[in-house]
Amino acid sequence: MRSPVHRVSLGDAWSSRVHPDIDSERRTQSFDVERLTNLLDGGVENTMLRRKVESIIRNDPAFSLRGHYSMTQNELYEAAVRRRFHLEMVARRLGWPKDGRERDYAYRAVSGNLNLTLQDVFLNALRSLGSDEQIAKWDQLCQDYQIITSYAQTELGHGTYLKGLETKAIYDPATQEFVIHSPTITATKWWPGDIGRSATHVLVLAQLICSGAQQGMHAFIVPIRSLEDHTPLPGITVGDIGPKMEMENIDNGFLRLDRVRIPRENMLNRFAQVSPDGTYKRLGTEQSNYFGMVVTRVKILAHGALHDLQKACVISVRYSAVRRQSRLRPSDPEVKILDFQAQQQKLFPQLALSYAFHFLATSLLELLDRSYGSILSGDFRCLPELHALSTGVKAMITDLCAQGAEVCRRACGGHGYSKLSGLPTLVNRATAACTYEGENTVLYLQMARFLVKNYLKARLSPGATSQQPLPPSVAYLTAPDLARCPAQTATDFLCPELYTAAWAHVATRLIKNAAHDAQTLTQSGADQQEALNQTALLQLQAAKAHCYYITVKTFKEAVERLDNEPANQEVLWSLCHLSALHGILTNSGDFLHDGFLSGAQVDMARTAYLDLLPQIRKDAVLLTDAFDFTDQCLNSALGCYDGNVYERLFQWAQESPTNTQKNPAYEKYIRPLVQRRTARL
Amino acid sequence: MRSPVHRVSLGDAWSSRVHPDIDSERRTQSFDVERLTNLLDGGVENTMLRRKVESIIRNDPAFSLRGHYSMTQNELYEAAVRRRFHLEMVARRLGWPKDGRERDYAYRAVSGNLNLTLQDVFLNALRSLGSDEQIAKWDQLCQDYQIITSYAQTELGHGTYLKGLETKAIYDPATQEFVIHSPTITATKWWPGDIGRSATHVLVLAQLICSGAQQGMHAFIVPIRSLEDHTPLPGITVGDIGPKMEMENIDNGFLRLDRVRIPRENMLNRFAQVSPDGTYKRLGTEQSNYFGMVVTRVKILAHGALHDLQKACVISVRYSAVRRQSRLRPSDPEVKILDFQAQQQKLFPQLALSYAFHFLATSLLELLDRSYGSILSGDFRCLPELHALSTGVKAMITDLCAQGAEVCRRACGGHGYSKLSGLPTLVNRATAACTYEGENTVLYLQMARFLVKNYLKARLSPGATSQQPLPPSVAYLTAPDLARCPAQTATDFLCPELYTAAWAHVATRLIKNAAHDAQTLTQSGADQQEALNQTALLQLQAAKAHCYYITVKTFKEAVERLDNEPANQEVLWSLCHLSALHGILTNSGDFLHDGFLSGAQVDMARTAYLDLLPQIRKDAVLLTDAFDFTDQCLNSALGCYDGNVYERLFQWAQESPTNTQKNPAYEKYIRPLVQRRTARL
Repeated sequence: MRSPVHRVSLGDAWSSRVHPDIDSERRTQSFDVERLTNLLDGGVENTMLRRKVESIIRNDPAFSLRGHYSMTQNELYEAAVRRRFHLEMVARRLGWPKDGRERDYAYRAVSGNLNLTLQDVFLNALRSLGSDEQIAKWDQLCQDYQIITSYAQTELGHGTYLKGLETKAIYDPATQEFVIHSPTITATKWWPGDIGRSATHVLVLAQLICSGAQQGMHAFIVPIRSLEDHTPLPGITVGDIGPKMEMENIDNGFLRLDRVRIPRENMLNRFAQVSPDGTYKRLGTEQSNYFGMVVTRVKILAHGALHDLQKACVISVRYSAVRRQSRLRPSDPEVKILDFQAQQQKLFPQLALSYAFHFLATSLLELLDRSYGSILSGDFRCLPELHALSTGVKAMITDLCAQGAEVCRRACGGHGYSKLSGLPTLVNRATAACTYEGENTVLYLQMARFLVKNYLKARLSPGATSQQPLPPSVAYLTAPDLARCPAQTATDFLCPELYTAAWAHVATRLIKNAAHDAQTLTQSGADQQEALNQTALLQLQAAKAHCYYITVKTFKEAVERLDNEPANQEVLWSLCHLSALHGILTNSGDFLHDGFLSGAQVDMARTAYLDLLPQIRKDAVLLTDAFDFTDQCLNSALGCYDGNVYERLFQWAQESPTNTQKNPAYEKYIRPLVQRRTARL
Repeated sequence: MRSPVHRVSLGDAWSSRVHPDIDSERRTQSFDVERLTNLLDGGVENTMLRRKVESIIRNDPAFSLRGHYSMTQNELYEAAVRRRFHLEMVARRLGWPKDGRERDYAYRAVSGNLNLTLQDVFLNALRSLGSDEQIAKWDQLCQDYQIITSYAQTELGHGTYLKGLETKAIYDPATQEFVIHSPTITATKWWPGDIGRSATHVLVLAQLICSGAQQGMHAFIVPIRSLEDHTPLPGITVGDIGPKMEMENIDNGFLRLDRVRIPRENMLNRFAQVSPDGTYKRLGTEQSNYFGMVVTRVKILAHGALHDLQKACVISVRYSAVRRQSRLRPSDPEVKILDFQAQQQKLFPQLALSYAFHFLATSLLELLDRSYGSILSGDFRCLPELHALSTGVKAMITDLCAQGAEVCRRACGGHGYSKLSGLPTLVNRATAACTYEGENTVLYLQMARFLVKNYLKARLSPGATSQQPLPPSVAYLTAPDLARCPAQTATDFLCPELYTAAWAHVATRLIKNAAHDAQTLTQSGADQQEALNQTALLQLQAAKAHCYYITVKTFKEAVERLDNEPANQEVLWSLCHLSALHGILTNSGDFLHDGFLSGAQVDMARTAYLDLLPQIRKDAVLLTDAFDFTDQCLNSALGCYDGNVYERLFQWAQESPTNTQKNPAYEKYIRPLVQRRTARL
């Protein structure tokens, strides 16, 4: 089979010859891989544009990622800035539009190994919280890189509890300035990307104090480095926070502000204004200033950890089609490890989830698009649901992507521990996403409060809900519910209505439990915070079940819409079934607890699940091909399209500094240690 | 409170002043911390000796780990060899005995950041598989570092399926030599530690061919580097395998052998001999040559991943006692995050397991000690059980330690992602243990076969078992079993007999299921290998349940023996209960499946579990103190004994090369990018 040039992008000695063990996987196609790629891209035009950008990146040695896994933190940072600079030159030369998709595709093609990415977070906040005048002033400067921007919220001693942020912005009517100040060491801004060594302007989140009162968290544009020579401005102490688990291309930094003065116009003021005399006026709700965070959280779902999981699936599935181990019969060749049930039950649920989360992230982006305009114009009715979904869905996608990427990594045995496999980087990146843009446990608990609140609203005053319906994502809480699952055979578990209803049932029950237990506690005298604390475990269970329900339901609805593509619909149904049943089996206690499923039904679900594995087996390599990642952006000795894993791993190892640089330890330490050897040898 | 000098070992500006938030945790001691430390050490003499060694290491700047997290792979390797060299000089000067505990304690004190550790694996194999003459010849050379040894089994294309190893050892009677050869690229030895740049002699595992037949895997001592100048010997291609997820102090390497000749005496021949004319004689069983692997696998359980989890608990619990977040009431200070149920239910099960696994690893080491002599003298009756336990227990301990360390890391929020917290290194080391010395899934499946075999033996011929009793660890398979759990209240779940019996019930049921389903498949025509493959998921569940049962049972028995120390017994009972109930709740489906537990009983178990959390809360910091890790070996800005987390994190970040080295990216890329700034700023 011809190797599609857009996939085999490394151009090394092995690219031209596809390994027969992986070639054979692609000879029979039960579905249209190219059309599935188009579906994932959101249309054939996008696929074409993406490949065009990828081809530019591939053919430009300045974007190479070779040697990446042996670089120091400083080298990775410098290379990432270099790529960003070069990308901007290319973009200007080719006339890429400012908000076009080309830069996103370029970001994907270099696997995120760029710096100055916090610009997007700055822009999301500016456009969500800034007035039209502020957007007009700052947006273009930022996009043109005339200033380098970042977003500083988290502090050394304060994370997701935003009311605890210590940085102050005190309004001084005498000069019409805000005085931004870090009163303690724990008030030091800590973690913001691009701040360590790059940013010139930072959106600082601080407690506004004016008219003698604390007005809550607001956002202020603060210049921190000279545009002349990049030195810190007066009152600014800034630097890098040092070595990290991964993502060392980004200079995450710290920032202390010693009574730094900025003009009144630098507070973003779409939803809150301070007049020259210091009078404070709120235009939005108390939550409006969190909207920038919601926007960023939703926008990263579609790439971020999800791409990490998808790539981990590509690498591990391709490797498993080439790696052989054990003989089933003495005369046979060793078996492809992809043929083992033990391997399939590791990888295929991850593959199914990496499709499920694609559709989930897409649907949430669409919801954001639909709500964005009305929120900006001051209609906040859909904000609570959007906020809740952005918390719970972010938490679940990143949790399961991090977990799944590690499953894929370990499924590659020892080679998965080599950085040259690409997998350690994917795992360590995906796990970062569980903490940044909101720590997952805190996010689940926020989702849980939304669920409990809506549950109580629906159950306690059923009459009222007809006037004020529940938000769509929780409407199922008032729908009729079955007490027992009607499944009688394994095949019954391949019915999307059946497993979606099963998840709705379990989510409803767990939300009810959490609400009930919290109420019991408050009725027996605990205050509300204490009741929430004492029922945290139940709330976490409820939020997770709800999110899994939303995942299954969204996947099901996306597949249903593919009626005109029966082959692709069929292969996606398998993945949809598998993701639902995988969730049921790994949480079977929740389904058995009230007898909704019997033990015999769980066995049926397992049979259905196990029967799906060989079906997905035949399409597995093609299903990972459909993600259409270039070899360059996979940057994996194990995961290239051609399947020549051993030759490439051997070659890449030879190029490591451990082999190309001298070994001073021998002369200095090993020879003296071995000094007293005997003649016997 | 006085800071014990053996704990506060960094001697920096903050060590002398214990943070009040952690000091208060130590003011009331409900148990005797020092006696618990003695218990973990195996006696007060061991604690004293360990602290003596730790004090030597602490006071010697040559052992410092400062700057470790910013080093390159080559720097980490060189530092590790330097420490090994220095340690040997110290050991010789102080006259430490060869097989004494001092070196183990030194290894612990430098947190394993040494090289030349494969010596132990070589010695385990030599002493298990070598004749007395061979041991006499090689053991001292190795211990004296007159040669530097390693153990090479895994190949580029072959891992746990040992029959698939391609390296050949062909006997040549003409010269009485073995010809060791790597016939293909996939036959390249890949991964052995210390081979990349250090080892002079390697124990090569190869397929023996003599008398014209393949005789299976045997072990051969092969010199690979010149003792004169360290260059590879003729026929040897050797090097380093490049960057890894972690453990870069070790030079994991590759080794190709091109018809390398070694004398007949270099085959380890306790259990198999080749006479001068090439006649092959087996003295042990087919499995005897795996005995070296069993020994190594058991010996690493007591440190390795378990220490990683214990340290992760120390760091995360101490940090959680200092970190504050959210107010329960507006007038209160922010709450210690250790007071949140959501945090407790993350950390305390890990703390409980890190005690449980200590007792489990100890009991397995004792079993090995009891069996070792008889196996060496050719009595292999206890080998199958020892082998099975070494597989399943290794798999479970490393799985749950890796998972647990990651839970602890994430429980520290963003700071857990900083390498300076020490947590990323612990997680990435613990996860390595899931793959080295046997990939965990393969190991679980080996355990499962042992279980199914014994189950069938017991059930199919109950008469025969009275003559030939089951091995002790599976004797419960024939014990009377309850169909329903008798618990009627939450308190009933704090009864060790009750939860141990519950685990025995579930393990028995799952083993029975796996055996039954495999039998059904073979009876319907599948061959045995295929039946095993198709029931892999069930076998994995069975093996995991059995291992958890063994864990709970061993912990229970260890606590029961502490009758003369009631306070320490009580605090360990809490941990024992918690580990058992945590396992039940995270696998509740297995207990609900056949009605052994009802939904109401699972709720009782959860109530009992939640009620244990505040009990453990009051002792949590002291329970981690009892592990008695020095600040030096924790090497964590978040986890020091004194609790001054923010000052140390800030200081360590300043010392990072990202702050101490220049930023060339500014001149080269950032300035040109920001070139077109406007006057508006």
